[in-house]
Order: sequence, then C-alpha cells, then structure tokens
Amino acid sequence: MAELRFRVRFDAVQLGPGKAELMEHIRDTGSISAAGRRMDMSYKRAWMLVEEMNAAFAVPLIASTRGGPGGGGASLTEAGAEVLRRYRAIETAAEVAAAPHVAAIAALLASGDIPKQK
Amino acid sequence: MAELRFRVRFDAVQLGPGKAELMEHIRDTGSISAAGRRMDMSYKRAWMLVEEMNAAFAVPLIASTRGGPGGGGASLTEAGAEVLRRYRAIETAAEVAAAPHVAAIAALLASGDIPKQK
Repeated sequence: MAELRFRVRFDAVQLGPGKAELMEHIRDTGSISAAGRRMDMSYKRAWMLVEEMNAAFAVPLIASTRGGPGGGGASLTEAGAEVLRRYRAIETAAEVAAAPHVAAIAALLASGDIPKQK
Repeated sequence: MAELRFRVRFDAVQLGPGKAELMEHIRDTGSISAAGRRMDMSYKRAWMLVEEMNAAFAVPLIASTRGGPGGGGASLTEAGAEVLRRYRAIETAAEVAAAPHVAAIAALLASGDIPKQK
C-alpha cells in the first residue's frame, strides 16, 4: 500500500516519524549522538528532541548520562519502550484501516501508478 | 482523542491536510483563489497544488475556467469528490483504529495532559 506518514499531536508534545526513529536508534546504539548521526541529525537537535519528550511525559522516555569517562550513554526506559511500541502500533493499525480507501484512490491515479511500497 | 495528522504518499502525488482542505474550499466557494484565501494561501500556491493533483490523476480532480467575464470558476469533478471523500474516510478509519494506542500514550503524559480535541 501507499506510505502513510503521520504524527500524533498532544498539547505537550507531537510524536511523528522523526522522534520514533530517533528512539529506535537510541535503543539500538545506546547513544543519543550516535542515534542522531544515523539520521543526519545534529547532536543538538537530537538532544532537543529527547529533552522535549522527557519533559512531556510523567517519567522520562530516555535515560542518559551525559559525557563522563565512557562518553555517556542512553537507553529507552520502560515508558519509552511502551510509547515507541504504541506509536508503531498506531502506524500499523492506521495503515490496515486505511488500506481499502488508499487502494481506491490509487486506482484513480494516472497511468496505473503503483502506490509506494514501504 | 488526540489529533492525528497524516499524509498519503504515492509516487506521483502526496495527499495531506492542505490539499484536502483546499478541495473542500474549492467545493464550497466555487473558486480556487477564494479557496486559497480562506487558508491564507497565495493564489499561485493554490493553483500549483491544483495543477499537481490534476496532473497526477487519470482525470482532473478540479475543473476550472481561468479568468473570463465571470472571473473564472472552479469545482470538484466526480473524481475530485471521490478522492476527497476517500481521504476523509482514511482519516476517520485511522483515528478509530489508533484510538486505544493514542489513549495509552496519553495516559503516560505528565500532569494528566488531555489530548487535543479536533
């Protein structure tokens, strides 16, 4: 099916593909700066997004130690893992629910245009 | 529930909230420029979006007469009405499907933050 890009807007924070991907890279690399580099995102911006998420939730989504001998490190907290899992579940649920309508729109496109595969 | 903003990406065109709203205003005002004004969108940009949509689909979504004694006019074609209807259906279906996960994320927000109503 076509690619469905979306973000969820709460009063305190927006969650979109950038923050979700950043959380996944933090989980996988154990580092906010390494996660940012994987997305061509500056260290400063990666930290800003982490701080924005942590401030919006009752408990931080990302635990981190800044600098230090080992160069610092970061990981998802239980709440962070939960938010990430729910975000990806929203994505899947929305895509499945939207699929028949997306296919109907795709059928109206010029020259048998095939919707993008994810 | 929280506001879910999304866009559907095909190879030839992306459909998002801006194009959907523009189509609704064209339907309601009978004019591309009036539709653009309602969205604080320049005449040029409104036309560009219309031309982009019309080029991507097998039949135009918006029929228009440019200028002329009556100042021109525009309306949704049958295909345009169908695409708009399907876009709004995607929105509704996605929101319903996502609702339990959105609520679960909302419950983790600080200070009992209430998700934005649409």
